[in-house]
Amino acid sequence: MAPWGKRLAGLRGVLLDISGVLYDSGAGGGTAIAGSVEAVARLKRSRLKVRFCTNESQKSRAELVGQLRRLGFDISEEEVTAPAPAACQILKERGLRPYLLIHDGVRSEFDQIDTSSPNCVVIADAGESFSYQNVNNAFQVLMELENPVLISLGKGRYYKETSGLMLDVGPYMKALEYACGIKAEVVGKPSPEFFKSALQAIGVEAHQAQ
Amino acid sequence: MAPWGKRLAGLRGVLLDISGVLYDSGAGGGTAIAGSVEAVARLKRSRLKVRFCTNESQKSRAELVGQLRRLGFDISEEEVTAPAPAACQILKERGLRPYLLIHDGVRSEFDQIDTSSPNCVVIADAGESFSYQNVNNAFQVLMELENPVLISLGKGRYYKETSGLMLDVGPYMKALEYACGIKAEVVGKPSPEFFKSALQAIGVEAHQAQ
Repeated sequence: MAPWGKRLAGLRGVLLDISGVLYDSGAGGGTAIAGSVEAVARLKRSRLKVRFCTNESQKSRAELVGQLRRLGFDISEEEVTAPAPAACQILKERGLRPYLLIHDGVRSEFDQIDTSSPNCVVIADAGESFSYQNVNNAFQVLMELENPVLISLGKGRYYKETSGLMLDVGPYMKALEYACGIKAEVVGKPSPEFFKSALQAIGVEAHQAQ
Repeated sequence: MAPWGKRLAGLRGVLLDISGVLYDSGAGGGTAIAGSVEAVARLKRSRLKVRFCTNESQKSRAELVGQLRRLGFDISEEEVTAPAPAACQILKERGLRPYLLIHDGVRSEFDQIDTSSPNCVVIADAGESFSYQNVNNAFQVLMELENPVLISLGKGRYYKETSGLMLDVGPYMKALEYACGIKAEVVGKPSPEFFKSALQAIGVEAHQAQ
């Protein structure tokens, strides 16, 4: 691997993950990972552009940023690329009205979205809201559509909380894919479009970013 | 296709499905499908051996047979091949102690099974018991095992109730497979072993059965 000086030569921007990189989520707002508050501060003082790029889909950006600021991070809502706003843009562009299989914490991101007579399903990390009834409702909506559209905010398998491992959105996305014989459209990491939109927001090309 | 006389020539036994063939499940015990009560009676009066072969995993055999008898069917518990007893045999043979992600209605089938310190998961059509908490418990059990074993009673996508389409065990099996990066062992249809055990019970070879 090239030495750091050389690797950083053409670098203009940095994308930072949040959960598991800046902080560990959990009861009471989670905890900052050692050194990360200062690392973000130093990056922001440097000539590099910084963008936060997360698959967090249990909380709205407002809630997430509030939590991080309380932990000492210099971060604002406008600096965050998250899957819910990206999904909203897709819904508007394609005239889609979703049944929302999501956590109540992220529902405010969809305030401007028409959810009457659903013609698609949006699934996110819903946690306890992944009840049989709710998952079955989403399934029934999909089965009644001629061209079922399932939009998944990420496809993570699981994440770690202070209380233990927790099922993420991916397993439930797979459940609906199998039940309906369809393939979900993933919005969020690892979708290249998602990273591109984060880079566009800071005006940096992929080869100039880390 | 050969005429019936010829096709029936070497026939010695018949395997009959139950749900969707003999009756439709639903509120109030379901309803017999037209002609099926009499068809079973006629088969039993014939020289053919009859065995009922079901993937029903929400009810114990006792409950299922009780329901069918109330609808007029000539059927007894001993004539039914079902996945729960087949799974119990596997658990005993391999010294497995399951975490049971199942419907309360079928729990009695596992009365003789040691469920302390689970070293595997058995998943069945659990209906409302597929809460996030329960599915996550099963996931955590599997993730703590060096060699995670997931036994699934069938892998059906969905079934029809009078109230609409309902998610079956298959989608939840897929969810756990994806979350843990494993492959489930399916007990029940369409596993060849399951059909073989049904045929063995009536002493009939595969080529002699319909």
